[in-house]
Amino acid sequence: MNRDNFKRIPKHIGIIPDGNRRWAVDHNMDKKDGYFYGINPGFQLYEIMLEYGIKEATFYGFTHDNTKRPPNQKKAFTNACVRAVNNLANRDANLLIIGNNKSSVFPSELMKYANNRIKFGKGLININFLVNYDWKWDINNGYTKQNSKDTFIDNIASSDISRIDLIIRWGGRRRLSGFLPVQSVYSDIYVIDDYWPDFKKDHFIEALKWYQTTDVTLGG
Amino acid sequence: MNRDNFKRIPKHIGIIPDGNRRWAVDHNMDKKDGYFYGINPGFQLYEIMLEYGIKEATFYGFTHDNTKRPPNQKKAFTNACVRAVNNLANRDANLLIIGNNKSSVFPSELMKYANNRIKFGKGLININFLVNYDWKWDINNGYTKQNSKDTFIDNIASSDISRIDLIIRWGGRRRLSGFLPVQSVYSDIYVIDDYWPDFKKDHFIEALKWYQTTDVTLGG
Repeated sequence: MNRDNFKRIPKHIGIIPDGNRRWAVDHNMDKKDGYFYGINPGFQLYEIMLEYGIKEATFYGFTHDNTKRPPNQKKAFTNACVRAVNNLANRDANLLIIGNNKSSVFPSELMKYANNRIKFGKGLININFLVNYDWKWDINNGYTKQNSKDTFIDNIASSDISRIDLIIRWGGRRRLSGFLPVQSVYSDIYVIDDYWPDFKKDHFIEALKWYQTTDVTLGG
Repeated sequence: MNRDNFKRIPKHIGIIPDGNRRWAVDHNMDKKDGYFYGINPGFQLYEIMLEYGIKEATFYGFTHDNTKRPPNQKKAFTNACVRAVNNLANRDANLLIIGNNKSSVFPSELMKYANNRIKFGKGLININFLVNYDWKWDINNGYTKQNSKDTFIDNIASSDISRIDLIIRWGGRRRLSGFLPVQSVYSDIYVIDDYWPDFKKDHFIEALKWYQTTDVTLGG
C-alpha cells in the first residue's frame, strides 16, 4: 500500500501511544522501562507519515495527571520526551510543544520550545507534542486571555493546533483520556490493541484504511 | 444477566442513538421517518437502566449542527424529542434538558423544561437530554458567567451534568460528534454497529460487560 491507494488521507492525526508500562511488564522489565521503548516507534511513525503526506500530527507526551505516578516513572517518561525532542531537532519538522510550562514538572530542557512553533530542518510536517498537558489548563487559558469579541476557542492554550481528523490510540483503551478535547470533538477514533512499543507500519495502514470508510460530517 | 452479575456498574452513561436515518433507508422509508422509530428504544433502555440501578443517563437528542439538515428531517427529529419528553413526564425521572433555548430552533414545547432539572413521578434516575446542544455554546457559556474565583468548569452550560463513565454509541461511528466534551474527557467509549432503532437489551449488557474489563484511571 502506498499513498496513491488511498482516496482520502487525514490531514491531522492524533497519536495516543499507550501501553508502554504494560509492555514492559510483559517483557519482565520494570514498568518505568517501557517508556524508553516508546521513543523509536515515534520516529518510525514520523517517517511513515512523511511518506504518506500527513500535514500535522499531535503526539500525547504526558499529562499533568500522569505526573502523580511514582517518581521513577515520572522521571522515565519525562526523559523519554526530552530525548524524543532532541532527536526531532535533527529532522525536518515544525515542532509545537503545548503544556503548562509554569509548573515545576515541566522539563527544563524543553523550556526553550514551549508554546511556540519552531522549524527544524526543512519543516516537512507540523508535529505537536503535548508535554505536561492538562485539558483544564488548556481550556481555562481562554478565560484569562479573553477579550469580548473572541470565543474561548481563539484563546485556549492549544489554539495553534488544528482540528484532528483521526486519532489512533495504541494499547486497547477506548477513550480520549483528556487528549485535546476541543480539537477532538469530531475526530474519528481508531484503537489498536497492541502496545505502543510494538508499533508496526501495518497499524498505521489499517487505521488509514478504516478512516477511508468513515464519512466526515463535522456534526452536520 | 442481572445487576448482581456485574462487579462494577457505571454511575453515568452517555447515549448516542445514531443510525436512525440509515435504518429508515434500509427499511425503504424516507430518511426522516427513522427518528420516530428511535423513540421507543429510548424507553426500553430507560426501563433497563432502572433495573440495573444506573443513577444518571445523558441522551443525545439533537445538536445545533443537526438543524442545518433538510427541513423535513429537522421537523422529524424535533418532534421525536418533544414526544420523548412528553412520554418521560409520565414516568419516574429527574429531567434536565440542556441546549441553547435562545435560538429559534429550540422547540417551544420544551421551553418550560430548558436548563433546569425537573422531577417527574418518583424521580428514580437523572435523565439529561441534549436538545439543540452545541459544544461551543456549552463551554463558551462559562466565559460570560465567570467570576474570577471560578474555573470555566463551574460555569459551562452543562455544569449540572456529571462526569460520564461510559458512552454507548449506536450506528457504528467511532467518534463523539461534539457530545459533552468536558464530561467525556475520561469516558470509556463503546460502539455498537447496529442502528439505534434496532436497539435490544443485549447491546446494553455487552457494553456493561466490556465496561467491567476497563480500568478507571481518570488520566492518572
